[in-house]
Amino acid sequence: MDLKQKLSGLGKLKPDNYGKDFLLTTEKNLEDLKYIGGLAETLKEFHKQSKSFRLFDTGLAISIFRDNSTRTRFSFASAANAAGLGLSELDEVKSQIAHGETVRETANMISFLAEVIGIRDDMYLGEGNRYMREVSDAVADGFENGVLHRRPSVINLQCDIDHPTQSMADLLKLRDYFGSFENLKGKKLAMTWAYSPSYGKPLSVPQGIITLMTRFGMEVTLAYPEGYNLIPEIEESVKKDNPGFKIVNSMEEAFKDADVVYPKSWAPFEVMKQRTELLKSKDKNGLAELEKHCLANNAKFRNWECDSDKMKLTKKGEALYMHCLPADITDVSCREGEVSKEVFEKYRIHTYHEASFKPFVIAAMILASRFEHPEVELMKRL
Amino acid sequence: MDLKQKLSGLGKLKPDNYGKDFLLTTEKNLEDLKYIGGLAETLKEFHKQSKSFRLFDTGLAISIFRDNSTRTRFSFASAANAAGLGLSELDEVKSQIAHGETVRETANMISFLAEVIGIRDDMYLGEGNRYMREVSDAVADGFENGVLHRRPSVINLQCDIDHPTQSMADLLKLRDYFGSFENLKGKKLAMTWAYSPSYGKPLSVPQGIITLMTRFGMEVTLAYPEGYNLIPEIEESVKKDNPGFKIVNSMEEAFKDADVVYPKSWAPFEVMKQRTELLKSKDKNGLAELEKHCLANNAKFRNWECDSDKMKLTKKGEALYMHCLPADITDVSCREGEVSKEVFEKYRIHTYHEASFKPFVIAAMILASRFEHPEVELMKRL
Amino acid sequence: MDLKQKLSGLGKLKPDNYGKDFLLTTEKNLEDLKYIGGLAETLKEFHKQSKSFRLFDTGLAISIFRDNSTRTRFSFASAANAAGLGLSELDEVKSQIAHGETVRETANMISFLAEVIGIRDDMYLGEGNRYMREVSDAVADGFENGVLHRRPSVINLQCDIDHPTQSMADLLKLRDYFGSFENLKGKKLAMTWAYSPSYGKPLSVPQGIITLMTRFGMEVTLAYPEGYNLIPEIEESVKKDNPGFKIVNSMEEAFKDADVVYPKSWAPFEVMKQRTELLKSKDKNGLAELEKHCLANNAKFRNWECDSDKMKLTKKGEALYMHCLPADITDVSCREGEVSKEVFEKYRIHTYHEASFKPFVIAAMILASRFEHPEVELMKRL
Repeated sequence: MDLKQKLSGLGKLKPDNYGKDFLLTTEKNLEDLKYIGGLAETLKEFHKQSKSFRLFDTGLAISIFRDNSTRTRFSFASAANAAGLGLSELDEVKSQIAHGETVRETANMISFLAEVIGIRDDMYLGEGNRYMREVSDAVADGFENGVLHRRPSVINLQCDIDHPTQSMADLLKLRDYFGSFENLKGKKLAMTWAYSPSYGKPLSVPQGIITLMTRFGMEVTLAYPEGYNLIPEIEESVKKDNPGFKIVNSMEEAFKDADVVYPKSWAPFEVMKQRTELLKSKDKNGLAELEKHCLANNAKFRNWECDSDKMKLTKKGEALYMHCLPADITDVSCREGEVSKEVFEKYRIHTYHEASFKPFVIAAMILASRFEHPEVELMKRL
Repeated sequence: MDLKQKLSGLGKLKPDNYGKDFLLTTEKNLEDLKYIGGLAETLKEFHKQSKSFRLFDTGLAISIFRDNSTRTRFSFASAANAAGLGLSELDEVKSQIAHGETVRETANMISFLAEVIGIRDDMYLGEGNRYMREVSDAVADGFENGVLHRRPSVINLQCDIDHPTQSMADLLKLRDYFGSFENLKGKKLAMTWAYSPSYGKPLSVPQGIITLMTRFGMEVTLAYPEGYNLIPEIEESVKKDNPGFKIVNSMEEAFKDADVVYPKSWAPFEVMKQRTELLKSKDKNGLAELEKHCLANNAKFRNWECDSDKMKLTKKGEALYMHCLPADITDVSCREGEVSKEVFEKYRIHTYHEASFKPFVIAAMILASRFEHPEVELMKRL
Repeated sequence: MDLKQKLSGLGKLKPDNYGKDFLLTTEKNLEDLKYIGGLAETLKEFHKQSKSFRLFDTGLAISIFRDNSTRTRFSFASAANAAGLGLSELDEVKSQIAHGETVRETANMISFLAEVIGIRDDMYLGEGNRYMREVSDAVADGFENGVLHRRPSVINLQCDIDHPTQSMADLLKLRDYFGSFENLKGKKLAMTWAYSPSYGKPLSVPQGIITLMTRFGMEVTLAYPEGYNLIPEIEESVKKDNPGFKIVNSMEEAFKDADVVYPKSWAPFEVMKQRTELLKSKDKNGLAELEKHCLANNAKFRNWECDSDKMKLTKKGEALYMHCLPADITDVSCREGEVSKEVFEKYRIHTYHEASFKPFVIAAMILASRFEHPEVELMKRL
């Protein structure tokens, strides 16, 4: 990849990312997304060529993880470091926040020297994205009132609605695999539910995939067992904008002639709603009951495993298998899971490669929101 | 603010901060404090103008938090990062320190590449400041014996006696509010106890305020319900040096004609003494008993709330309300607290602004103790 | 120390560290070790002279601590910072690793921007070093398959077999003490077991010392009470290569005419084997039983304390006392321990000085594995 040419190309786009948060891909126009995608690829190439893209001298990148995480945590840490920011994690347990302090206050108190705040909050339906906006509003208030010198940008590291750093990484994997954004048009992608021995997995990945990939012209089929639907408003909105978008209740049907398959477990929307209420009321018995019920229900769909036979249904039997990882791999991480060992092993390096875009996507989101023309700054480094 | 002019002004002072710890404001002369205050304001302006004040290329800033903290933790992290130091937190639980290792040894073992050690230890009367001195002595010993190349400076991030990063930030807020240090002279400040539904809050903030603000010529009145006194030696010493300093047992009396009010809860000295003994002997029942007793006693003083009526007693009814945050706000963070929602909301942005000085105060303490002439180094950046 | 001369000297060596892990000193040839030793001393002098040796602009140093640690944790943090890398700790509890994810996958997922991975894993016999190799193989696989742009180097921060950052620091202490590597030849070192009121201490330090110091020509005597042997293969291999190496069952005998004594507790190999099985099967009762039995056995050897009387047996009564710290010091950290207060106090600064090499040894390991000619890069800084 010629870096100068790539940077020049970015300079021709007219994105609107500067000073903005990244909370949902649906709030970004295609130009914004293409800029961030292109910038991420460029930063990846900078790293490959051992060229620094450290545009900050100092400054904090704050992360707030309200759920466990390895890859997103390290992706954010890697991106912050490469951009030149120091990482500071807000550990809500270690801090004094239990005191009943407001989000408005905490957000300002930690942000005096912050450039960016990455948040992961995907436990409760209706909560994660709302919380991110509350933080964003709080620092906007601090900035407008002269308390903060700059308004740190908020980046969604996974919420109840979307997982944009994942879906953008997936988009770049697809672009790399098929050669261009243009080539994605008309390609068939099967986003399907898959069996897992655990329950309660968030809806953000499938929601993120169907909303984003349809906008890049892919023919997306969403498949799940009856009752395992996503947030209804999101399904509706994708349907409305994309006549080619289909929802089916059979993994096999979705796999038919697919160019790409993305088999991944999630909990039904209705279950997530109940779970949210039970978590809020700290009803341990209710949660245990729900889990039992759901696992029993899941068990009816053990055949929703991505195995070699099903892969044969795809385009020439050679569809690209994708997963956000970690996958529940039959006979590796569980007895029966989302994908057979054979299929996973065949595509293992592809899934690692897919993941490899994430730190650079996050770095691109940071730079695009903090610099008016990152491509100009980066050109100076060449 | 003209940065060059400000730096030149700093160059005219003759402070004695280089190579020194910052453990108590009372150990510093006025020139030292004015230098650090002026440097902190300058660094804040550097940040506002997006100019880096990273004077270190590498080096560690170590923090030891023996109590929970959000704002001081992030202030220290922010300051260290902006100065160019990497943050390393000594987590006494994760480490091997339980082995019975001496403070003398641990302090040296972690300090081979350290420039500064920030310590927060405010749980036990007679302990926190003593511990800081033990660490300081230990690294001095290591340095003198050739084990450490440099003696890292110790900075008090709150102890049983003082909270200098807070009081210095408060001082800068007051200077900003009234226009100059000169203008502080004769201004009336009411440092008063306030009701809180919790107990056991440390004495360091009121102690820090009365010792520091009197030295800048403010007329300070300390108010608390009978029995809620601070460390007697500190009250005595402030009294001795400041004929204008008063102690009263009425919030209203203190508020009368005040230019500034600082209503904040704390536990009585006698209670803190008992609590210290009980904590040391790990007497859980005793602690529960003490808490019950104290909360019952606190409850007699529910009317010690900073509300609109009391604010009317202040100078033109418009005194500046200050708080180190988080405040116990009635109907926001508790049912009945230190301050009414109305008053807090009116001054909310002022309290955030007050807090905004803290990271820069810490950065100034770091640079002033590690560089002979920070103002000269900074001038080179302009 | 003249830095240019020192760097020129390093340039004359032909080591093979570039792109390599550091897992065992026995896998390195003498030239490799001398280069890393010399580089560590040089970096120490850089720091002393306040010269930066930050060769990285950005990049991650990842640490994985599977056991508590203070000094190694801070040494690694210090080294990473000084080299210019950001530290990211993989906390296996906070992460999603419990999901049953493979080491192969996790290692790649965290390594996209990593330069080095430091691992401490010394709990189970047969595990720690094996785990390090598994991580190393995993990132090699990711690199070879184009997923990682670079293969991060793995550094052993203590395993079941060796503790190379400790033994290399010890080697540099000895070189400093005796003047040169040449002078180490023929010097008598007593690596002896010592009594401790705790049990289960790993074997890696004594194993690291006897394997490394014999290669530098020291006459090493290993002493322990009957039954307290190290891993038999390691003892055998040292014996085979060094006719002067002796194993005795008396501290006094080992101390006789020694130039250096290293009295330190460890658990017998047989006990570690049993303990490993019990830990693996999570057999709490079995572990408690084993501990009881071992402590009772240890108690028979309370006289294995390094005290003034025993020190009199050494060369002129003035052997150098060494310890990796923290030591179990009689009347300081325990009632009866590895060393008397008097002896420890006499050599306390020596033990601190010994420890002071460790961060620079780690920094040297990092730079030597990541740069083809660190001495050339460093020369540019002078």
